[in-house]
Amino acid sequence: MDKKPKVAIIMGSDSDLPIVSKTIKVLKEFNIEFEARVISAHRTPDKASQFAKEAENMGFDIIIAAAGKAAHLPGVLAAYTVVPVIGIPIKSSALYGMDALLSIVQMPSGIPVATVGIDGAENAGLLAVEMLSIKYDYLRKTLKDRREKMAQEVSKKDEKVKMEEFNFD
Amino acid sequence: MDKKPKVAIIMGSDSDLPIVSKTIKVLKEFNIEFEARVISAHRTPDKASQFAKEAENMGFDIIIAAAGKAAHLPGVLAAYTVVPVIGIPIKSSALYGMDALLSIVQMPSGIPVATVGIDGAENAGLLAVEMLSIKYDYLRKTLKDRREKMAQEVSKKDEKVKMEEFNFD
Amino acid sequence: MDKKPKVAIIMGSDSDLPIVSKTIKVLKEFNIEFEARVISAHRTPDKASQFAKEAENMGFDIIIAAAGKAAHLPGVLAAYTVVPVIGIPIKSSALYGMDALLSIVQMPSGIPVATVGIDGAENAGLLAVEMLSIKYDYLRKTLKDRREKMAQEVSKKDEKVKMEEFNFD
Amino acid sequence: MDKKPKVAIIMGSDSDLPIVSKTIKVLKEFNIEFEARVISAHRTPDKASQFAKEAENMGFDIIIAAAGKAAHLPGVLAAYTVVPVIGIPIKSSALYGMDALLSIVQMPSGIPVATVGIDGAENAGLLAVEMLSIKYDYLRKTLKDRREKMAQEVSKKDEKVKMEEFNFD
Amino acid sequence: MDKKPKVAIIMGSDSDLPIVSKTIKVLKEFNIEFEARVISAHRTPDKASQFAKEAENMGFDIIIAAAGKAAHLPGVLAAYTVVPVIGIPIKSSALYGMDALLSIVQMPSGIPVATVGIDGAENAGLLAVEMLSIKYDYLRKTLKDRREKMAQEVSKKDEKVKMEEFNFD
Amino acid sequence: MDKKPKVAIIMGSDSDLPIVSKTIKVLKEFNIEFEARVISAHRTPDKASQFAKEAENMGFDIIIAAAGKAAHLPGVLAAYTVVPVIGIPIKSSALYGMDALLSIVQMPSGIPVATVGIDGAENAGLLAVEMLSIKYDYLRKTLKDRREKMAQEVSKKDEKVKMEEFNFD
Amino acid sequence: MDKKPKVAIIMGSDSDLPIVSKTIKVLKEFNIEFEARVISAHRTPDKASQFAKEAENMGFDIIIAAAGKAAHLPGVLAAYTVVPVIGIPIKSSALYGMDALLSIVQMPSGIPVATVGIDGAENAGLLAVEMLSIKYDYLRKTLKDRREKMAQEVSKKDEKVKMEEFNFD
Amino acid sequence: MDKKPKVAIIMGSDSDLPIVSKTIKVLKEFNIEFEARVISAHRTPDKASQFAKEAENMGFDIIIAAAGKAAHLPGVLAAYTVVPVIGIPIKSSALYGMDALLSIVQMPSGIPVATVGIDGAENAGLLAVEMLSIKYDYLRKTLKDRREKMAQEVSKKDEKVKMEEFNFD
Repeated sequence: MDKKPKVAIIMGSDSDLPIVSKTIKVLKEFNIEFEARVISAHRTPDKASQFAKEAENMGFDIIIAAAGKAAHLPGVLAAYTVVPVIGIPIKSSALYGMDALLSIVQMPSGIPVATVGIDGAENAGLLAVEMLSIKYDYLRKTLKDRREKMAQEVSKKDEKVKMEEFNFD
Repeated sequence: MDKKPKVAIIMGSDSDLPIVSKTIKVLKEFNIEFEARVISAHRTPDKASQFAKEAENMGFDIIIAAAGKAAHLPGVLAAYTVVPVIGIPIKSSALYGMDALLSIVQMPSGIPVATVGIDGAENAGLLAVEMLSIKYDYLRKTLKDRREKMAQEVSKKDEKVKMEEFNFD
Repeated sequence: MDKKPKVAIIMGSDSDLPIVSKTIKVLKEFNIEFEARVISAHRTPDKASQFAKEAENMGFDIIIAAAGKAAHLPGVLAAYTVVPVIGIPIKSSALYGMDALLSIVQMPSGIPVATVGIDGAENAGLLAVEMLSIKYDYLRKTLKDRREKMAQEVSKKDEKVKMEEFNFD
Repeated sequence: MDKKPKVAIIMGSDSDLPIVSKTIKVLKEFNIEFEARVISAHRTPDKASQFAKEAENMGFDIIIAAAGKAAHLPGVLAAYTVVPVIGIPIKSSALYGMDALLSIVQMPSGIPVATVGIDGAENAGLLAVEMLSIKYDYLRKTLKDRREKMAQEVSKKDEKVKMEEFNFD
Repeated sequence: MDKKPKVAIIMGSDSDLPIVSKTIKVLKEFNIEFEARVISAHRTPDKASQFAKEAENMGFDIIIAAAGKAAHLPGVLAAYTVVPVIGIPIKSSALYGMDALLSIVQMPSGIPVATVGIDGAENAGLLAVEMLSIKYDYLRKTLKDRREKMAQEVSKKDEKVKMEEFNFD
Repeated sequence: MDKKPKVAIIMGSDSDLPIVSKTIKVLKEFNIEFEARVISAHRTPDKASQFAKEAENMGFDIIIAAAGKAAHLPGVLAAYTVVPVIGIPIKSSALYGMDALLSIVQMPSGIPVATVGIDGAENAGLLAVEMLSIKYDYLRKTLKDRREKMAQEVSKKDEKVKMEEFNFD
Repeated sequence: MDKKPKVAIIMGSDSDLPIVSKTIKVLKEFNIEFEARVISAHRTPDKASQFAKEAENMGFDIIIAAAGKAAHLPGVLAAYTVVPVIGIPIKSSALYGMDALLSIVQMPSGIPVATVGIDGAENAGLLAVEMLSIKYDYLRKTLKDRREKMAQEVSKKDEKVKMEEFNFD
Repeated sequence: MDKKPKVAIIMGSDSDLPIVSKTIKVLKEFNIEFEARVISAHRTPDKASQFAKEAENMGFDIIIAAAGKAAHLPGVLAAYTVVPVIGIPIKSSALYGMDALLSIVQMPSGIPVATVGIDGAENAGLLAVEMLSIKYDYLRKTLKDRREKMAQEVSKKDEKVKMEEFNFD
């Protein structure tokens, strides 16, 4: 098993980058090779379909796609590949992200998209790692360590709050 | 001006036909040539992009596209052509059509879709005829006659209701 | 075919102008003659109906109407003309634009309004140009050039993001 | 004070009659003269504006207007008259009446519509009577008797439920 | 007809005053006597019911009630009087005013509340004047003048926008 | 500790009884004394306030109140008593219960209502028993037995599903 | 009856503390012993279940749990104990708190959670005191005093608003 | 690579089985070993956490979890394992599935759930197969064949609709 895990991160617009960078941060944390791209389902549709068609051959194990508003990108990519696609609904100025969420999650039978929460870019990265860990067993340990670390952080805050006096005067 | 008006009607699934047939009925009423197709943005994506790319050369003046749930079809077609695309959100079992409406109407800047109401297939047909009437002036008369006829039907009902006794006993 | 394309842009309130100016910018980009107006369906209803009735004779090929909240303007104009009406739902302080969207898009059978996304003024302009290009063939080239330009901009951003190091430390 | 109270009841479509008949029933109960009409804001817009303009001169004290979906009728009538307009949002097949509610209630500053609940036709009638009772004092007694009767009906049911054994076996 | 029109304005909290002052401004504009009160349906319920019970005897022709969130105030007042109650849903920090709108407008059959739009305090005042004009005929002229003035303001803005050059460079 | 637990169950309309009877069933299951009443916040408001005021003296430990649409009943009762009030939002024909849920749960600071899910009458009963078990310790055992029984029922179904062959032909 | 009332306050994240501190303030006001904790249903799930299982033995009469977004915490705690659980939906950046509200309130039959309004932390505290007052009768007096004080505050504001001149010039 | 792919399918209630059986059908189609279980996050919480904790050791590569209303099950399972969890929101009688969707998809950072559409059980199965195909390469061929078959079915319907005469008389 020589092949190393590799993930594509496609955003519909470079304005999504502040959110999507949380995904990138997770992948770097796990030392997973990734390629970050700006490809629009509507403005560069041929590039989108071409990328999706070639994703498997290019060695991508997973595609993560972020988009706002009508947010067709994850579904459009999914239509052209059987590589699993994770969709991140991006909150935009109107409709507080509900439009993107419904556009991404309500896919027709036959073409799934694994949807995470609105602006849920960190979880998109972690979901990718969990998917990869089915094959790349070594990732499980780091995933568990990360959970452990999260738990400890919560516990530290728990200790702090338990000690607090809560004087409101 | 030899060319005759021609409209493409694309539905994402043949289950949309009962709704979409209202569009077809309008086009037949106006003697407008049309081609009705079942093309899925997700199940036959290449056919969808190919159709949209060739729509102009095939002589289509307008594309009408109906889809439910994530409802990417109108936006996907619009991405590949500058022929105007009219989108019909189809109500499905969950979410009462709100998902399809938002997925169709909330298109990103640069790629418009002319959206009609949920299950608004008759209006999609009429909107197409109105668009065509910009060029094909003769359609305006029939559009006005149709409005006149609608008005008369409302008036007839008005007369009937005005006369009603409304005895509730 | 001497007539030149001409578009009416009606806003329900001058507070809509910052959004609607994106429509105007598109029409100027395409050198399309337009008339921008402030006409309220509720405060100047006679002017609204009169405008819509005369729109065809005044040579308007399309009416674009923007309104917020109850947003009756596009539908009211559409009731008086068979000239195609494009509706722009404007987001206002409450309800994040959902009220305007539903008020505009859910038109009854017989009187269509071509609805674009919330605050989707640029798309309203482009949709108008696409409609006009059915007749005025020369517009298609510019539309395609514009798409090409958009694609190139996305590609440029794609290149930039591809190169990025994403160092989070 | 010779003038007798008179109310106009306008429905956008005769399909609204089953709901609107509850309004009529209330007005008959109070012996208030009314005229029931089918006038569409979109299909017979001139009739709608004309009716609203003449409503005051025709002696109408109040206009009650019922409409579904985009539901512009109450607002359109209100735009042409200072006679108070009561709006009834009608539930239709899609969007469970939310579209009609928002289209009716979210009127711009300056042109109010007194909105009742979805399908709230009985309350529209009672609201009209309450408004009329500002002038026609004799209506107050019947309004109070009706409330008393309602209270007694609730009390009767209360007695019955209090007595119930609630054996579930 | 010696009695002069008189309106009660009840707000559930003094934090509603910035919105409710728009109602007060309208009533002052029409020289209508009013009493502004802070009475909470939940914190001072006895005062609320007592006020509503005595409203008619105190000479109030109309009660206007503003409330946010669960917004029971208008309905609670309406339960104790046949004086017409106008409800103003106030937008609060969560749920963008939808909670208050539904709590006010969805009253059960038998007890109507005339609901205006979210934060629609100006319209509440105007609706009250329209209701009063059923009896106090002299108010109609001022109402019409106000409409005329609004129309002129819109027309002035219309002229200004018509003249604008829209240079975007 | 002579006093026995006692619960009031108030429904706004006897049409709520099919749902509310699930609450009654739970209370009978726990042998808790209850009084079921039909009292409307809007149709019999004095009875509602009077009941709430006397609830404590009448020995009621908890008030459970069910209502649909504007659903003011639980909040109105809560305004008159410090006896804890549990609110059940009842789904009605329009708006799928969202109106009742928001009207009940979004109470202003100072007057809480313990809200359960839409049509959540069984949970209202159980929540009441849990509240009572703070004082009446003997109820805890039955509560736990009930949970145990529920768990066993789920386990039985689990066993059955585990055994299933799932032949789809 | 030696045991003193004791309440657990669990927040899913320490970012909820600014809201939750309102709960704490109420409990301190009533001199009720409490323990404030940061325990996450998802990041420290074992601690959550363990806490809930031991809550009764640790002498907790009530658990108050606050969480945002998917907001499973109150339901997860409720699954492990028959001690009554009060849930506070916390508003987060997307979806304005609707997600947390539905996740908390829509519990399945058998496992109730007493839900308060979005960010309704003060009411959560008061609801807890009301529940405790079933057993600890002495709390009722303070609850009533608090209500009285609230009423007086409203009345003071009422007096002030009644006196106001409302000069808008 | 001796290990064979294995998937756990957990439903919160056996009433979810008619939907969940579509997931099972997909897994059988791909000859993937699965275990179908009824485990409730609220009624059998210990079994839920225990199952999730042991899932990896039991050889499960993926957990698919279906739940309605508050729908905590997928999130609760995800909290106890780094095995990827796919969540299926089940539509129930109230709120048309929106509650389950938000409860499942809006997970906090750190604990992802791969969410599919409302009642999207077939897609949950396919998403699982796509995830497995990262490791089990042989699954890709069948996935592609299935897509091909879907495309052919759409094409067959396309041919049929293209041929249709659409005579409405």
